[in-house]
Amino acid sequence: MSNNQQNILIIGAGLCGSLLALRLGQRGYNVTVYEMRPDLRRTDISAGRSINLAFSDRGNKAMKMVDIEDKVRDLCIPMNGRMLHDKDGNTFLSNYSGRDYEYINSISRQELNALLLDEAEKHKNVAIHFNKRCESVDFENTTALFSDYHTKDEFIEDADCIIATDGAGSALRKSYYLEKKFLFSFSQEWLTHGYKELSILPTENGGYKTYKNALHIWPRGDFMIIALPNLDGSFTVTLFLSYDEGEYNFNNLTTPEIVTEFFQKEFPDALELMPNLTEEFFENPTAPLGTVKCSPWHYKGNTLLMGDSAHAIVPFYGQGMNASFEDVVVFDSVLDKFEGDWETVYSEYEKQRKKDTDAIADLAIDNFHEMKDHVGQAIFQEKRKIEMALEKEFPEDYSSKYSLVTFNEDIGYREAMLRGRAQDKAILNMLSDGVISTSDDIKDILDKVKTETEAILEDDRVAGLG
Amino acid sequence: MSNNQQNILIIGAGLCGSLLALRLGQRGYNVTVYEMRPDLRRTDISAGRSINLAFSDRGNKAMKMVDIEDKVRDLCIPMNGRMLHDKDGNTFLSNYSGRDYEYINSISRQELNALLLDEAEKHKNVAIHFNKRCESVDFENTTALFSDYHTKDEFIEDADCIIATDGAGSALRKSYYLEKKFLFSFSQEWLTHGYKELSILPTENGGYKTYKNALHIWPRGDFMIIALPNLDGSFTVTLFLSYDEGEYNFNNLTTPEIVTEFFQKEFPDALELMPNLTEEFFENPTAPLGTVKCSPWHYKGNTLLMGDSAHAIVPFYGQGMNASFEDVVVFDSVLDKFEGDWETVYSEYEKQRKKDTDAIADLAIDNFHEMKDHVGQAIFQEKRKIEMALEKEFPEDYSSKYSLVTFNEDIGYREAMLRGRAQDKAILNMLSDGVISTSDDIKDILDKVKTETEAILEDDRVAGLG
Repeated sequence: MSNNQQNILIIGAGLCGSLLALRLGQRGYNVTVYEMRPDLRRTDISAGRSINLAFSDRGNKAMKMVDIEDKVRDLCIPMNGRMLHDKDGNTFLSNYSGRDYEYINSISRQELNALLLDEAEKHKNVAIHFNKRCESVDFENTTALFSDYHTKDEFIEDADCIIATDGAGSALRKSYYLEKKFLFSFSQEWLTHGYKELSILPTENGGYKTYKNALHIWPRGDFMIIALPNLDGSFTVTLFLSYDEGEYNFNNLTTPEIVTEFFQKEFPDALELMPNLTEEFFENPTAPLGTVKCSPWHYKGNTLLMGDSAHAIVPFYGQGMNASFEDVVVFDSVLDKFEGDWETVYSEYEKQRKKDTDAIADLAIDNFHEMKDHVGQAIFQEKRKIEMALEKEFPEDYSSKYSLVTFNEDIGYREAMLRGRAQDKAILNMLSDGVISTSDDIKDILDKVKTETEAILEDDRVAGLG
Repeated sequence: MSNNQQNILIIGAGLCGSLLALRLGQRGYNVTVYEMRPDLRRTDISAGRSINLAFSDRGNKAMKMVDIEDKVRDLCIPMNGRMLHDKDGNTFLSNYSGRDYEYINSISRQELNALLLDEAEKHKNVAIHFNKRCESVDFENTTALFSDYHTKDEFIEDADCIIATDGAGSALRKSYYLEKKFLFSFSQEWLTHGYKELSILPTENGGYKTYKNALHIWPRGDFMIIALPNLDGSFTVTLFLSYDEGEYNFNNLTTPEIVTEFFQKEFPDALELMPNLTEEFFENPTAPLGTVKCSPWHYKGNTLLMGDSAHAIVPFYGQGMNASFEDVVVFDSVLDKFEGDWETVYSEYEKQRKKDTDAIADLAIDNFHEMKDHVGQAIFQEKRKIEMALEKEFPEDYSSKYSLVTFNEDIGYREAMLRGRAQDKAILNMLSDGVISTSDDIKDILDKVKTETEAILEDDRVAGLG
């Protein structure tokens, strides 16, 4: 059967599903997409989902693949670094890279999703249906059961293959788990912290009330707020806080007075920019932060999990969307090799990809601790200073863990993790032992860091830990 | 309310549940136990569950606590080491410790469970009911729904607190997961290998057909068989093999001819002792190997998971039963401090215990690879040789990872894991770098291993990995 006769059913038209529909449409498949929510181009459905996201090189590689890089750039606000805010309102900009051309971007989830839907629908072999919720998937027979949001009617769709891009609460993953027809490894891990979205509104003339081109962080050890800019001059602020531990937590922030007291004490400079804080605090939901891993991602050549449905991660590396977009890039390259044999495509895709999505899940948890805590500690600040200098002086020879993960889209997450962690360990230990200091000759530091990093990686390999 | 007025409901009268019932009975509580299976003292219900188990110092500490150490000793067959069998039938005994008084034991699950049930029932405040299966637990109201195996009648039991020791398929854990009333972190991870139990029968006069006092291993890289002795002269043999990978696997071992060919090629000396191999192979089930972790283990002060229901592990460290028995020891020590306040007892118990059960789960996976593969590699054999010499020469100063885990019941699993892994890494790297060799002065080796181990632990601490 040639490609354009193959019927592919995609469950979920979020960021990953709409990109996948676009790409498979470009490849000539008959693509049908069902999305449980209404069409976000016609309805405001932002409630409960994050409003803006970090977009970086891995995501952009996918945009290049489908040839919409320029259109996406128009939606981006570059963020060159972290702007740290201490309790006295002092700020300190810590660049993401020592290379000027490396930065991340703030982007609106809704606008990017709308663009992908528009582009997908330009292909007459792609059809997208909204308000159709997937209830379950019969993965033996490659059919899915849907219900219509308005009429409540149920109907079954048949396809040559089904790909579920239906997010962390995936119906297909639930079917894999509950049917117990094969050994399905699965984990869901929740942090003790939840999050709540708030905002800093634009100035009266539509300007930004604080520095535009940064990801702002107010790290406070056990909790933090962050803020990302939007095109309209506002910032979306996110509070990450424990549900029930510490002096202030989501369970005891129950009145406007206590919320104001908390912000006044911990984030006074932010509070000044947030006159609508207490209203938003009690209107907006508090949401949990979870990591989902599972395996296998596919059943025979019939069904496949992709994006958050296969690997939901916490947001602290700004890689959730980028990882899902990269899924489609990897899937596309596997299709180049094995097109026509879905079972091989699926198993080869998982084999290539799972080690990397496991790695970014673990890196995102690490960064939770780094962002709320480590960025404020002297030894981590010295490490950061050294790494910025290394990247600036030796742009071809050194990339920090953050750069490896964020700006090196041709290195997998797992390799970035292993090398990045070894570098961190090398620098922290040499700082701690007085082997290097921030005042040393930078070339000398580079040589020592490289040698020590290799030694650490080799020691792990010999011990079978590599 | 004084203790003896408190009603405790235990779900499951396996090894952990019957020990817990005995201990809480000794402490004066009103204990009711419901077990879904028939009474194993009156019915043979071994099918599908492992027949003998490794019993070691952590388990024995629990037997001391309930004062039945001597009775348990009568059920034990000491195993001083691993007897390795190569393909030519050559054997090599590798002791578990350089200290003669450290060994593990083979013990019958059924006889040990029967002893614990007998001891528990000696207390008039302990009642054990069989053939009552728990269907679900209402953890808000501290009640559990049971069904009777014979009559199929359902009934609800109320208690002051409920402790579920109902194993890897726990009904309480399922209720925690499905009810979604709180953030329940959960993972189930399956190995790609399954296992099948076989046997070596006694000689005609009831003797042992191979060396009695060892755990026999036939390591073959991707698969293995092991054998543990029973009191009647037989050995229980377990085949660990991939479901679908490699030349021979559970999916393609479909005829007596292929099974015999496989054993003839890989385990010829074992095959000679197993005339009933092919019958057993097709009669006995193939079972999967899984790890379960979860958190929280308790809901308020109402319900608690303990033993395999909270932390099922793969069998490769011989610690499954020992870990569950140690649960009861830790729980008992927490009761000493906080008796009367169940919520504090439960949360303090989990706080103290979970890090250790997570560690033994990870160690058991490590040992899967070590047993089937590493034990046959030169560098690992050199490491083992050095460690045996260190333990023999410096019994007070050195313990291998295996000894720390198995024979040092006053060190938690997590501490044993961190120290043991650092030691392994130190020795392997110094061997690889030529810093030490098996012919060096042993005191010199001890000093180098200790120094290098401390350096590795310190490096991890500085890098935030400790």
